[in-house]
Amino acid sequence: MTDEHATAGVPMRWVGPLRITGNVANIETEVPLATYESPLWPSVQRGARISRMAPEGIATTLVDERMTRSVLVEAVDARTALAAARQVDARFGKLREIVRAGSRFADLVAVRHEITANLLYLRFEFTTGDASGHNMATLAADLLLSHLLDTVPGIAYCSISANYCTDKKATAINGILGRGKNVVTELTVPRDVVHDRLHTTAARIAELNVRKNLIGTLLAGGIRSANAHYANMLLGFYLATGQDAANIVEGSQGVTVAEDRDGDLYFSCTIPNLIVGTVGNGKGLPFVETNLTRLGCRAEREPGENARRLAVIAAATVLCGELSLLAAQTNPGELMRAHVHLERTAEKIGQES
Amino acid sequence: MTDEHATAGVPMRWVGPLRITGNVANIETEVPLATYESPLWPSVQRGARISRMAPEGIATTLVDERMTRSVLVEAVDARTALAAARQVDARFGKLREIVRAGSRFADLVAVRHEITANLLYLRFEFTTGDASGHNMATLAADLLLSHLLDTVPGIAYCSISANYCTDKKATAINGILGRGKNVVTELTVPRDVVHDRLHTTAARIAELNVRKNLIGTLLAGGIRSANAHYANMLLGFYLATGQDAANIVEGSQGVTVAEDRDGDLYFSCTIPNLIVGTVGNGKGLPFVETNLTRLGCRAEREPGENARRLAVIAAATVLCGELSLLAAQTNPGELMRAHVHLERTAEKIGQES
Amino acid sequence: MTDEHATAGVPMRWVGPLRITGNVANIETEVPLATYESPLWPSVQRGARISRMAPEGIATTLVDERMTRSVLVEAVDARTALAAARQVDARFGKLREIVRAGSRFADLVAVRHEITANLLYLRFEFTTGDASGHNMATLAADLLLSHLLDTVPGIAYCSISANYCTDKKATAINGILGRGKNVVTELTVPRDVVHDRLHTTAARIAELNVRKNLIGTLLAGGIRSANAHYANMLLGFYLATGQDAANIVEGSQGVTVAEDRDGDLYFSCTIPNLIVGTVGNGKGLPFVETNLTRLGCRAEREPGENARRLAVIAAATVLCGELSLLAAQTNPGELMRAHVHLERTAEKIGQES
Amino acid sequence: MTDEHATAGVPMRWVGPLRITGNVANIETEVPLATYESPLWPSVQRGARISRMAPEGIATTLVDERMTRSVLVEAVDARTALAAARQVDARFGKLREIVRAGSRFADLVAVRHEITANLLYLRFEFTTGDASGHNMATLAADLLLSHLLDTVPGIAYCSISANYCTDKKATAINGILGRGKNVVTELTVPRDVVHDRLHTTAARIAELNVRKNLIGTLLAGGIRSANAHYANMLLGFYLATGQDAANIVEGSQGVTVAEDRDGDLYFSCTIPNLIVGTVGNGKGLPFVETNLTRLGCRAEREPGENARRLAVIAAATVLCGELSLLAAQTNPGELMRAHVHLERTAEKIGQES
Repeated sequence: MTDEHATAGVPMRWVGPLRITGNVANIETEVPLATYESPLWPSVQRGARISRMAPEGIATTLVDERMTRSVLVEAVDARTALAAARQVDARFGKLREIVRAGSRFADLVAVRHEITANLLYLRFEFTTGDASGHNMATLAADLLLSHLLDTVPGIAYCSISANYCTDKKATAINGILGRGKNVVTELTVPRDVVHDRLHTTAARIAELNVRKNLIGTLLAGGIRSANAHYANMLLGFYLATGQDAANIVEGSQGVTVAEDRDGDLYFSCTIPNLIVGTVGNGKGLPFVETNLTRLGCRAEREPGENARRLAVIAAATVLCGELSLLAAQTNPGELMRAHVHLERTAEKIGQES
Repeated sequence: MTDEHATAGVPMRWVGPLRITGNVANIETEVPLATYESPLWPSVQRGARISRMAPEGIATTLVDERMTRSVLVEAVDARTALAAARQVDARFGKLREIVRAGSRFADLVAVRHEITANLLYLRFEFTTGDASGHNMATLAADLLLSHLLDTVPGIAYCSISANYCTDKKATAINGILGRGKNVVTELTVPRDVVHDRLHTTAARIAELNVRKNLIGTLLAGGIRSANAHYANMLLGFYLATGQDAANIVEGSQGVTVAEDRDGDLYFSCTIPNLIVGTVGNGKGLPFVETNLTRLGCRAEREPGENARRLAVIAAATVLCGELSLLAAQTNPGELMRAHVHLERTAEKIGQES
Repeated sequence: MTDEHATAGVPMRWVGPLRITGNVANIETEVPLATYESPLWPSVQRGARISRMAPEGIATTLVDERMTRSVLVEAVDARTALAAARQVDARFGKLREIVRAGSRFADLVAVRHEITANLLYLRFEFTTGDASGHNMATLAADLLLSHLLDTVPGIAYCSISANYCTDKKATAINGILGRGKNVVTELTVPRDVVHDRLHTTAARIAELNVRKNLIGTLLAGGIRSANAHYANMLLGFYLATGQDAANIVEGSQGVTVAEDRDGDLYFSCTIPNLIVGTVGNGKGLPFVETNLTRLGCRAEREPGENARRLAVIAAATVLCGELSLLAAQTNPGELMRAHVHLERTAEKIGQES
Repeated sequence: MTDEHATAGVPMRWVGPLRITGNVANIETEVPLATYESPLWPSVQRGARISRMAPEGIATTLVDERMTRSVLVEAVDARTALAAARQVDARFGKLREIVRAGSRFADLVAVRHEITANLLYLRFEFTTGDASGHNMATLAADLLLSHLLDTVPGIAYCSISANYCTDKKATAINGILGRGKNVVTELTVPRDVVHDRLHTTAARIAELNVRKNLIGTLLAGGIRSANAHYANMLLGFYLATGQDAANIVEGSQGVTVAEDRDGDLYFSCTIPNLIVGTVGNGKGLPFVETNLTRLGCRAEREPGENARRLAVIAAATVLCGELSLLAAQTNPGELMRAHVHLERTAEKIGQES
């Protein structure tokens, strides 16, 4: 391996500000997005501008947070696997102590299990303070697994990671059981703003959302996903804030809801698997420090508060880009014109903001 | 929008060289990976070293390539939608001409359609030369859609993108119908190399692959995916080569197969949705130019040859990281020790290569 | 094994008539449903009555038909698998001859393939006349597989059935590539009928359909399915007409679309995997003969016509039950009251029809 | 509606006996299967015979049981939905009382919830004694929903059923959270029995299971399913015992595991969504009464015991048919010969048993 100090310099800009309210933060903030796809910036920018035209801005609700790691053990047979699972349930207090003894920030909040043949899949669920928590969860799972292998009869090691977590794969389990921050964003766009700024109507966006995001994805064989392009915004935000951007795989599984409410547009993005942190790998790079600080996510707060703030900002950013693209796609030719135009003049449009 | 010339500097290293053979390239090459997760480098490095211990190295087979865009039209009713679909089929030659007239590199190779209620989903499939082809496909789809709306009775515009493509979402359709480069990689690791370098056995890797990648992902509710961490390698490779890394969402849907063949390990990664290009957005950045050139993907070749070369290198890189991690997970504690160790000494280990 | 002449006597009734129009049949017909769940009868009955209040009745469009069987061969390596796949493509004409020589009714219409590692999955697609075609397809696949094993170098037998067909499993491939009859049904219910007979509004049914069938199923981790209870109607219809009712597994994967069109209700059920036949296993039982005859599906027609007629009747029956249940669920308490009431008085309500 | 006393007489036979052990029952019993597909009987028969050649027979482990019903409410916004969800959690004791007051047999064991936009999906989970519990769960959910609508501020009725249950659809949630009886079956077949009776080897069955059931289903876009034909055995068993056979849709989602253990075959079927009862709709028909009695499932036992006994018998029956078919498919031509032969001589082969 060579080139130790090289970097891939991904173009980055700040867009916004976005207006955000909710149970975590009530702020206006610009957000950084790093991407090779320059049309992303004006797209999010347009959504951000609209967020400021709504009194409440983007209402963000943090519903849940946890980081998970699954391990796999092999039992003598299914009956023994069941006995082991019951022991795990019965010992929850002890397991929690083990985790606490091993980390200042990790806390075991639940254990789930599933048996297939003689295999026992154990899914440990933690809160992890301001860290996204991959490593903290793996370390804690390692301790728990060692303890169980030592003390529960009839089971043997199979794997420290069992794909039942699930990390960086698109599955159903993360949405159903929880992994990462679960954030709902909502924006009500007045009828005249829909018309003047988005050049469309609430009814047309609602209809497109059903036909494209819900039915289209369903027909494509999607799993727990109905949106136009969450992955784009998440990638840009994750790279700009030092996150492990491979987590966009599950992060992009979310659901857009759009409703015509007497001409006003109710627009919501639910993003149940946002995996972000303000400490840990990547967070020590100078530009990341700078960005997190500018986002107000390096303040002195209770552990977890900075990460939650980052999560709701990320989620609101997703909404801005999603709204902008869906609106564009209701109009024949607009997307194509915008792409051609924006790729050439992204800078110029940016300055209008 | 501000900070126009800022970049997110993602740490990047070259690892390898990997030995690659197959129907596209027969080379040894180092590969660049940009990531915030430093353990990725030595992990891929270990796999690369093993690739050079096998006479054939990593056999890569490019099975297919195409870029797609789906559009959505609304018909008067299902019967009219069916009539429109039949017209589309009947006019394939004409549609192909339209695409060719609009682009030097795009070529329409197939059209698929599906009807739900009165909605007609049309999936246009193109080859796009050395470009990954998102924009080329969108432009061509725009032309085709305009033509169809003008000439086919009873249909109206719904959307230029129908999520039936499918771009940056985890679905089943891309694997079944094709999107991006479909590449199979295979490596046979001699028994003693499995033992000495991976500290495990072929039987244990094969068993782990069934229990973790196949059954574990299945239980998690995965869709067309059975691997440990393709997303990590793809992200690093995509960022280092100027790709739209949001395509790791579908790119990471692939299948690892591991078999114990008389003690030797047959190890294969099938990656059916690799979306890469050597021209287009992001490819003009100086470090990207440098990297693509060093990978031999900026040579004077037939259109498409450079992109195919890049695809098989990407796929071989995925195999290296996948093999290394699975081997580590067969051994209790190894992953944890490696993570702790590697995060501290990634540089040092890199130099051993 | 004992009790050779015993039968499980599943209660059966005829409901309707349904009014059906479209590209296969323009009829009014009653339909038989065999079920242990007596509320099914009045539920379908209510839908049938509404179908007769619409001038066009239930418009049914048969979009496609085919029966499939996949086989699996193992190649020396992926490159050989690719060469074999290309041979299969190149020899389509020969393969078709082999099928025709082996059966009067089976006709090979397409072959699809997918390669994973060194495994080649081949999906043969046939038309099968009036038979649902399971056995015909298996027999034809057996002939094709033998031929390929004899003549294509580098491949060996793995399985006569590869789960890539897919028979009696819920997957994405059947909807995307086709298996069984693909039928779209549409019914426009005038505003006053929605009010008087369904005690609800088009807007409420449309909203419920989005929230329950589309979003609810998505959140549950469904695959290519958005409906309330297609499985119930299909089971009842399949049992009453001698079908292999295990095919409700994939048959019940379909999509309900409901729209408020100025107060009228546009209601559509797309059922892409209807597997029915009028000859073959189960069709020789006296009550099945009687039922098929009464449905007009034992007439002298071109091969395939009777089965297509049966398919559109089945699909229209599904719509009737789906409409009725969704309407009921828009009203708090109605479903519960109906269930309690109907289980006690199914006979009585039946007589009102 | 007419023909009130008609029945669809599905051919039915008893096969076996099967040897069953485990945490619910230790018995040898024949089982009834009603089907139009006569090859099913000798197929299960072969498996049953093998079960008697293993000292422990088919080890069955009942892992869990519950019946579920989801309801849907609409909140003012996501924040209100979250507050409502927290109230539901806080009031679990009260909710349980409401259920107990409304039914002798229903007991609320858990409530799960998920928020999307302003929609709150509530999944109530019950034990339901010897009933499969559809109606009991719906009645209880109706009571709970009424209570919540009356007492929790800011929510309104959407639907008494939200497809998040999930009933008669193939989804991921039932396997992950539980619905029906979760039963694991295991059988170890000695090497010589594999050879003499199944005409194959453990290694070949294990390999086929990976390639067909795991990888084949995955490539087809399956969801939480890896088996050859659970649906066939479940349909036959459900019809013969008065069950709602539409529940084979989710019931057939299960996982077959096969391992070569030094030449012996470890064979396991995990069936997490078995929905069966010994009382309720369909159970009062004379032939059903007779069949349940003969299966020992109408004895005086604690509530739930009879249904659990029925569940493990159903699960063991599934294993018999699955083993037999997979073994046959390892041999080229055997399935085809068997089908042709068996359809003609099912009776004769039956008598050999």
